[in-house]
Amino acid sequence: MRVAIIGTGLIGASLGLAFRRAESVRTVVGHDADNANLATALTKGALDSATTNLTDAAENADVVVLAVPPSVIERVAEAVVPHMADGAVLTDVGSVKGEVVAAMERAVAGSNVHVVGGHPMAGSHEHGPETAMADMFVGATWLLTPTASTDQAALDRMTALVADVGAQPVVVDPKAHDLLVAVISHVPQLTATTLMTLAAERARKEDARLLLLAGGGFRDATRVAASNPEMWLQICQENSEAIVQVLDEYAARIGQLRMMLHDFDSERLSTMLTDAREARNAMPGKGGVSGQLVELRVVIPDAPGAIADITSTVSSLGINIEDIGIDHAPDGKRGQMRLAVNGFEAAEKAHEALGANGYEVLERAS
Amino acid sequence: MRVAIIGTGLIGASLGLAFRRAESVRTVVGHDADNANLATALTKGALDSATTNLTDAAENADVVVLAVPPSVIERVAEAVVPHMADGAVLTDVGSVKGEVVAAMERAVAGSNVHVVGGHPMAGSHEHGPETAMADMFVGATWLLTPTASTDQAALDRMTALVADVGAQPVVVDPKAHDLLVAVISHVPQLTATTLMTLAAERARKEDARLLLLAGGGFRDATRVAASNPEMWLQICQENSEAIVQVLDEYAARIGQLRMMLHDFDSERLSTMLTDAREARNAMPGKGGVSGQLVELRVVIPDAPGAIADITSTVSSLGINIEDIGIDHAPDGKRGQMRLAVNGFEAAEKAHEALGANGYEVLERAS
Repeated sequence: MRVAIIGTGLIGASLGLAFRRAESVRTVVGHDADNANLATALTKGALDSATTNLTDAAENADVVVLAVPPSVIERVAEAVVPHMADGAVLTDVGSVKGEVVAAMERAVAGSNVHVVGGHPMAGSHEHGPETAMADMFVGATWLLTPTASTDQAALDRMTALVADVGAQPVVVDPKAHDLLVAVISHVPQLTATTLMTLAAERARKEDARLLLLAGGGFRDATRVAASNPEMWLQICQENSEAIVQVLDEYAARIGQLRMMLHDFDSERLSTMLTDAREARNAMPGKGGVSGQLVELRVVIPDAPGAIADITSTVSSLGINIEDIGIDHAPDGKRGQMRLAVNGFEAAEKAHEALGANGYEVLERAS
Repeated sequence: MRVAIIGTGLIGASLGLAFRRAESVRTVVGHDADNANLATALTKGALDSATTNLTDAAENADVVVLAVPPSVIERVAEAVVPHMADGAVLTDVGSVKGEVVAAMERAVAGSNVHVVGGHPMAGSHEHGPETAMADMFVGATWLLTPTASTDQAALDRMTALVADVGAQPVVVDPKAHDLLVAVISHVPQLTATTLMTLAAERARKEDARLLLLAGGGFRDATRVAASNPEMWLQICQENSEAIVQVLDEYAARIGQLRMMLHDFDSERLSTMLTDAREARNAMPGKGGVSGQLVELRVVIPDAPGAIADITSTVSSLGINIEDIGIDHAPDGKRGQMRLAVNGFEAAEKAHEALGANGYEVLERAS
């Protein structure tokens, strides 16, 4: 199989490294509008051949991967499609799919090229091919978004290719994809941002200690608010329609909650809290944990190696650590480590061993 | 100083143990409506003396701690106040303060007893004096809520007592306290519950894979949704006024955000994302971390002890782990460990050492 990668930045070059290891790929050709990027990708061994000519790269390709910004996708797609092999697959790596897939579909109209949009759920803060890695997609989910006009052979080819680089292919409709990522990623990002903004403004106007007193729950709930603003601005722009739709549903639910609190509707509140807890506990965890997770809170002495010593103490008992975290004391100087283990029996054993090693431990099941 | 503890459950009995170690306390007297609880607290060594008579317990006490449910606070306060020493302090341990402090203030009217509401930010899922521990309050923040009528000597006495059990006293007005905990704890709990409910219903109605694809961001944002529904129902009831007030502000901000997205107001969105990021990064962390945190994502091999080995590898380089966490792969079978270290230099060193030990590592600064 001949694969062309258009755009040899971090993702494109990592894909090149991964494809060159893959059994189903014979040749990897690369193109980038930036010659330096292209040369680096070639030097890194991410490509069999590199060309500064876009259409040459696509010539007779069985798969073309567009790893370019969404704003230029349609123009690039139009340029490459006429040169691709008969029955070839055109795909991309963007995190929003509806518009981009529609643009690619327009570009393949009248040809025998098939569009299968793609979204590898992997990445890094780094840019450019310098830090590309062949293992970037190992274990990651790779969403594939065929449309009604995509034929099965094209989808099968992409599914095999994705599995070949170690990722797990998951097929979903493009519009459903965009709603799905709005629910599990984009709206949670924006609600965390909103919560952080509200707390920060209240801290500024009313009491600066407010943020110093925030515990693990607040830290968890707002963690993603620290993400890259440029990246999120772009995602908001690309997926604004789906985000607004999900945000409207979210706002309606916040409104209902407000009424339950105002009227103190104990029954509805209780049902909501109970259902949410069940749903959260049912989310799959490491190794398919089924029992109740019990949390041990361990006071971390201010000594290097304490964290390693705590985790070793628990692991050496043959107890799996199912979740782990650190909460910081209000003064920022002390911390507690959260260790979740499976069931009360394991918690007791770990508790005892940590206590014997001089650690202060508090047990807590939420 | 003679201290009386009314209600010798987990918190009351733990307080007894802590007070009996404290230099400033001479005698700890306990009372509980449940004789078995009282006997256990006495057996555990949490009390110097136990009495089944409420007013006897309060007789000549310099400090009375009400560790009873908020519904009975006023009745119990009215019963004990006439028996307390001249200039004594009446306090409690509830997590909501406005109503409870007002009830205690009514009970002391006309006496020379001073009210200083208290909220130790510590606890456990366990109940009853059996699992009481003297160290429960070590390192915890203990909010104290004096009012305009509280004299300075009473506040000083409580401040010293709280410091004596190893906690950090923080003074705040009762109404401000309730808004503060609504912002940093109660509203984040309810927004996490709302997000979880929304995602779970969409997963049920549209695509069950939705929750399987949720990544670390969604898991963080919804973690507290797994908390105890009964406990939260009670908190919602006690603090509904402050929660509704903060929730209204939150809903207004969500509405503004919705308009920014709908009209795609790139400038305002960018400002909001940037400000929230700055505020989140400015939250105090362990040891007052000042540099940029860099995250290393390490693929966890499915072997016992892997987590301990990863943390030991980093710690043995003399690098402090500033934050730690586990994200689970969509299939629940694989996990990645997140390790945050201070600055790119430390990240590079850790990255190299982990790589040399055979771990797959991806570096990521958010």
